[in-house]
Amino acid sequence: MKRKATINDVAKAAGVSKGLVSFAFNDRPGVSPDTRDRILTVARELDYRPSLSARSLSTRTSYAFGLVIARDPEILGADPFFPSFIAGVERVLLQEGRALVLSVVADEQHEATVYRTLTADARVDGVFITDLRHDDSRIPLLRELGMPAVTLGRPEGSHAGDPDAFPAVSLDDTPGIVAAAQHLIDLGHRRIAHVIGPRRMLHATRRNAAFAATLEAAGLPADLVIETDFTAAQGASATETLLDLAEPPTAVVYGNDPMAIAGIGVAHERGLRLPDDLSITGFDDSELARYVYPALTSVRTDPLAWGEAAAHALLRLTTTGVAADIDLEPARVITRASTGPVRA
Amino acid sequence: MKRKATINDVAKAAGVSKGLVSFAFNDRPGVSPDTRDRILTVARELDYRPSLSARSLSTRTSYAFGLVIARDPEILGADPFFPSFIAGVERVLLQEGRALVLSVVADEQHEATVYRTLTADARVDGVFITDLRHDDSRIPLLRELGMPAVTLGRPEGSHAGDPDAFPAVSLDDTPGIVAAAQHLIDLGHRRIAHVIGPRRMLHATRRNAAFAATLEAAGLPADLVIETDFTAAQGASATETLLDLAEPPTAVVYGNDPMAIAGIGVAHERGLRLPDDLSITGFDDSELARYVYPALTSVRTDPLAWGEAAAHALLRLTTTGVAADIDLEPARVITRASTGPVRA
Repeated sequence: MKRKATINDVAKAAGVSKGLVSFAFNDRPGVSPDTRDRILTVARELDYRPSLSARSLSTRTSYAFGLVIARDPEILGADPFFPSFIAGVERVLLQEGRALVLSVVADEQHEATVYRTLTADARVDGVFITDLRHDDSRIPLLRELGMPAVTLGRPEGSHAGDPDAFPAVSLDDTPGIVAAAQHLIDLGHRRIAHVIGPRRMLHATRRNAAFAATLEAAGLPADLVIETDFTAAQGASATETLLDLAEPPTAVVYGNDPMAIAGIGVAHERGLRLPDDLSITGFDDSELARYVYPALTSVRTDPLAWGEAAAHALLRLTTTGVAADIDLEPARVITRASTGPVRA
Repeated sequence: MKRKATINDVAKAAGVSKGLVSFAFNDRPGVSPDTRDRILTVARELDYRPSLSARSLSTRTSYAFGLVIARDPEILGADPFFPSFIAGVERVLLQEGRALVLSVVADEQHEATVYRTLTADARVDGVFITDLRHDDSRIPLLRELGMPAVTLGRPEGSHAGDPDAFPAVSLDDTPGIVAAAQHLIDLGHRRIAHVIGPRRMLHATRRNAAFAATLEAAGLPADLVIETDFTAAQGASATETLLDLAEPPTAVVYGNDPMAIAGIGVAHERGLRLPDDLSITGFDDSELARYVYPALTSVRTDPLAWGEAAAHALLRLTTTGVAADIDLEPARVITRASTGPVRA
């Protein structure tokens, strides 16, 4: 006997989200006439009839988005990026009366299980994909699940306007890291270190490549690179390691502000004067950056605006079935008192 | 014609959550035999029969908890308390395969709407109530909605083991603030200021009362109190105000670490030496506290452990129908280099 068609079959065949199929069947606003026609045609072809339960399920599940973060839960408290990004998302969802389903998974194995559960339970209409990775398993998984998604930045091998890719909300961070490195080179620094985040994350390797290219273009070695987990603790220990070198750097570029602020602390503990003895730059330009002493030169990425844009994109995608890529204002360096001319 | 009984009627009559009623009907684990019997008896009396849709709804909605935060979304990025608390919650939900539905509402008017929606959509089994307020409208609202809840600390007028109150997961912060104030008094400080959070929050007024009582017991005035919104920006401006006084304080107690770190920055900008010219204490003992210079004396509240305990309590409440109050280790002061003897 032929298997009864499910809402998943219709969604896959019509190339839309389950939420959108239910929107069409329940005559909810936000579905373009063409999309509704396409969905109902496909449903007829598949001889799909929504059960009362499917209907009640689908109508009541169209008001939440998912964010699955594959980091140690503690990173949420240690690195302001996610809280600020989430704040931006919430600002938009607040106006739209939607909720955010947040899951923090300790590793990438749990990750797939969570995405499958969110889909099976129809708990969310779409998800945000952050911290894009090399050979990112989430892209094919979410395609297979038929779960709409928006990526922060573009996945490996995808290009602007790629029709096969999920909509990408991008904030190019390379101009910011290049500007930070060039700023230090212009100040006369010749030995500049880079304290980066986990290499498995695209942004960590992408930023370091841009950093290295900038130094090499100035005829400088880019050999002082230390990988961390983005915590202030590892930012402090990386700084200790660098300052213990026979030939320590005169400037250090950090992958986020908490590590840079911890670096300032370590330098001060050693009696170094900033920026005379050591120049330091952070990343993300968190609220504290301007209030520490010396005020922290940082790279502004505006995670709050990023969250707002990503939420708008996912709203469009899940209600209309389509959303264009968005390119935010690229990251730029904000120079403050923590960077200065290298000592003669 | 008599109205058909709903799952709400059964839940109300049996004094349990809708989630628990569905657990009982769907023979899910986690319902004590007595509770299941009570529920099924009540259901028989009310002649309640779960519809397929109600069944599918209720079974698939029993794996999420809600956290509604009534603050400016930006506070999520500015104050590490919530990210750390959420991290603790997620640690537990991760093991239990549950998700957190997070809503940030700009004001307390939106708050009620969000709670009603979470209940009507059966989106969560229970909620965490944080930032308890005077005459807190959430307590009667959630009672009316029949939504299980766990409070962080005890509401006004409720006492230990109060049978009418929601289970409370408490971490007494007064010993910590008393110890911080006494620590400064013992160091010879006679003019100590307090930079506090919003007075509408119980913990802000409770901590300030404990602070004032400690100073008054030492025969000192507790007249230097500035209210803020917990952001580093307002912590910095409060510090400027205090240092501009004809008779500035020799020590400042801040309501959270970001404000204290901003205070350190302001003091350094003015050429003050810490702790010789000014002693500073923070609150919550966030990760950065030990890495700033001078290392920040703070009051340890362990929001991560608080989140874990609250999640365990809400799990017990929503799966068994009962949960005991939990009292965590009270807050204590962690003395570091930012506090020292008053200058002669």
